[in-house]
Amino acid sequence: MKAAIIGGGVIGGGWAARFLLNGWAVAVFDPDPEAARKIGAVLDNARHALPGLYDRALPAEGRLTFHGDIAAAVAGADWVQESVPERLAAKHRVLAGIGAAAPADAVIGSSTSGFRPSELNAAGARAIVAHPFNPVYLLPLVELAGAADITARAAAILRDIGMVPLILRKEIDAHIADRFLEAVWREALWLVKDGIATTEEIDEAIRMGFGLRWAQMGLFETFRIAGGEAGMRHFLAQFGPALKWPWTRLTDVPDLDAALVDLIAGQSDAQSGHRTIRELERLRDDNLVAMMRALKRTGSGAGGVIAAHEAGLPATATGPDGLPVTAEQQVPASWVDYNGHMNEAHYLDIGTRASDGGMAMVGADAAYVAGGLSYFTAATHVRYLSEVHVGERLAATTQFLGGDGRKLHMLHRLWADGDRLAATVETLMLHVDLAARRVVVPGPDVTARTAALVAAHAGHDRPDCVLGTGLR
Amino acid sequence: MKAAIIGGGVIGGGWAARFLLNGWAVAVFDPDPEAARKIGAVLDNARHALPGLYDRALPAEGRLTFHGDIAAAVAGADWVQESVPERLAAKHRVLAGIGAAAPADAVIGSSTSGFRPSELNAAGARAIVAHPFNPVYLLPLVELAGAADITARAAAILRDIGMVPLILRKEIDAHIADRFLEAVWREALWLVKDGIATTEEIDEAIRMGFGLRWAQMGLFETFRIAGGEAGMRHFLAQFGPALKWPWTRLTDVPDLDAALVDLIAGQSDAQSGHRTIRELERLRDDNLVAMMRALKRTGSGAGGVIAAHEAGLPATATGPDGLPVTAEQQVPASWVDYNGHMNEAHYLDIGTRASDGGMAMVGADAAYVAGGLSYFTAATHVRYLSEVHVGERLAATTQFLGGDGRKLHMLHRLWADGDRLAATVETLMLHVDLAARRVVVPGPDVTARTAALVAAHAGHDRPDCVLGTGLR
Repeated sequence: MKAAIIGGGVIGGGWAARFLLNGWAVAVFDPDPEAARKIGAVLDNARHALPGLYDRALPAEGRLTFHGDIAAAVAGADWVQESVPERLAAKHRVLAGIGAAAPADAVIGSSTSGFRPSELNAAGARAIVAHPFNPVYLLPLVELAGAADITARAAAILRDIGMVPLILRKEIDAHIADRFLEAVWREALWLVKDGIATTEEIDEAIRMGFGLRWAQMGLFETFRIAGGEAGMRHFLAQFGPALKWPWTRLTDVPDLDAALVDLIAGQSDAQSGHRTIRELERLRDDNLVAMMRALKRTGSGAGGVIAAHEAGLPATATGPDGLPVTAEQQVPASWVDYNGHMNEAHYLDIGTRASDGGMAMVGADAAYVAGGLSYFTAATHVRYLSEVHVGERLAATTQFLGGDGRKLHMLHRLWADGDRLAATVETLMLHVDLAARRVVVPGPDVTARTAALVAAHAGHDRPDCVLGTGLR
Repeated sequence: MKAAIIGGGVIGGGWAARFLLNGWAVAVFDPDPEAARKIGAVLDNARHALPGLYDRALPAEGRLTFHGDIAAAVAGADWVQESVPERLAAKHRVLAGIGAAAPADAVIGSSTSGFRPSELNAAGARAIVAHPFNPVYLLPLVELAGAADITARAAAILRDIGMVPLILRKEIDAHIADRFLEAVWREALWLVKDGIATTEEIDEAIRMGFGLRWAQMGLFETFRIAGGEAGMRHFLAQFGPALKWPWTRLTDVPDLDAALVDLIAGQSDAQSGHRTIRELERLRDDNLVAMMRALKRTGSGAGGVIAAHEAGLPATATGPDGLPVTAEQQVPASWVDYNGHMNEAHYLDIGTRASDGGMAMVGADAAYVAGGLSYFTAATHVRYLSEVHVGERLAATTQFLGGDGRKLHMLHRLWADGDRLAATVETLMLHVDLAARRVVVPGPDVTARTAALVAAHAGHDRPDCVLGTGLR
């Protein structure tokens, strides 16, 4: 699959990164001589962050090319994304060039923050709105508006690259999310202008309170909870009267004159000027990855999106030692400790997922556990053989050492960036009845599969194993 | 310290929980015969969630009492919090009763969402606005407005219980955060009323995009990044023109008539009605704890607040085995796996923190590491002796087994809920030069401290240790 990126700023670069890291070829057109450097910086950020969301490897990265004109970039493209500045005349000119050269069945998306599809296409183009959110390589949301058959095709493609399409029921200025951003932005400008709060105080008011709520549930589900068992109707009755009160200044719009620009820019410098934009981007991305990984466990919000995308990613079958791969991971920044390398506990994080993979191989998968039988770990032994750094890819292979009766004895090897042995994780598990919380012998199917795997792996090394002698 | 809670709904109950779990005595007055049950439910949620934020134990829970009148509840209180419904006459009546009976130096806070201090005190009360956010036991933000000497005292108290006071520079209707909530709420009502989006689509638009940004950085720092190296001024120039465009409908207010109430309540039922409010609360709280723990590593937003609060919490000195306690933790929900107990990797999570504690005891603390020397873990051996469940308190003790030359050999015991031995984590570490990434002998100070600890712990058991023979 091939994507053409027309306009390579922060948004275009983010689209390029999202497609590339999902295995697409990406062709870029941007007349800016700095375009390759700028997209390279966004790609660096994306490579640092996006793969760390997943517990499987993303596809091999696609090929990135730069082109001297729009026609060369869009030739043969499945998706063309326009991300030029927010001026309607410029969008019309660029979309005309795209329409003339792109394949008839290519999706032509515009990153416009505010224009409606009817405005974009007023001069004869066939674009849809495909409005993403910065950083495009991490945030899932894309608002789609336009012809129903094209938005439906676009939605399927976006889901394939781990994004969440939100198809608008009617076209509207600024779509949905930016209407909220604009409302908050206008209110914030008044608060700064009127000397009620500084930019930093406003950021604190958001991120110490409702920002945390909205990251996982949004507005209505949060308010539904506030209504208690009486529900949404009760909440509406309670807060309805406030609609008549002067709780916002949004019936008026502040003038963004030089004095207000100076005030905001100065406060923002005082708040964040000690960090470069690159440092802020890394901090933002590391936080986003850590929070989205945290949401993955409950499947809430963006966490559910990651889990669903991950389930469709191909798993590597065999490691450098010829043994089956049972877990994979690119190391996220949040796994690194004060020594500048992956913290010891995360070796076992991957080890426990490798044990889950080993359990699945003997037939003790999620359905088996749901049926009331499982394995509990009795002991683990980790040998740390090599430091592992942020961004490195890890693959765990599993060797079945023994599996007689109630015991399951496995050795996981953690391979870093291909074939460097980073650790061994030896694990001794016991088969249990989950209702009784007692050790029991597994059925003949699991026993037979385990025995076959132990026999198949008997020829491999068995380095420095220490477990399994004292337990019965 | 004693807090009096006047009005025990969701907000009053949240205040009660926040104070109680930070060791305060809490006296409640609420004429609702269901008040004790309702506050009990909030307390259950708080006990489940709040302690899991921290890597140390919170103080012993304070005593909760219920009283038949305001005077009895507020007697001797250091803080009185009014959380009655949002009607000014009711607030005046209650605040008069509080003012008559509360100690002269008590902070009298009102949870009002919208009234200004001058309105609250129009009938002679001496209250300040102390406006929190639901769930009060987890979200740090409290907006303070009113007399400067009282808000300053209130701010110090709030910091002590892990909250973030935001003192308003001027009083204003709806303070700061609720102005944003109200702006977004009004816009959302229009989008639903006009059939542009359902409640669920609006929640998706928020939590799949800007909600994730705002949870960690807020509005202005996020937009500063969007401006790139050119900074805030560039961003303002780029998006300034949109202020003149019809990007919101906030110049007008929708009528919350029966038809719109039906529409919203019905959509909310379709979106979230398959879960009870209690289930939604648990999900929200588990997500908040996991996200806030994720932010703790970088110190961003609420994560920085937790880290600072935690640093001031008293550490337990000695475990049930007489050995020093080097790590503590109440098990958060996100640590539980498909077997319904704490996942094996988190035993090592605590083990690695116990190793950090052990390092600090021999003099290898954060300053030592900053100086370029540290310890790397060479091997660990975990024996899982007992299941651990969500909400249980764990304490790790550390026994120094050996420390000759470059090696440091420790045995951590994990004690659950007092004196149940849940696991042993045996750890072998090597002293390293961080610049050279090579094993080196520590200096005489560290060597002497290690030898003294090994000698002091020589009399203890040494159960089933397996490490340290094959490494040199």
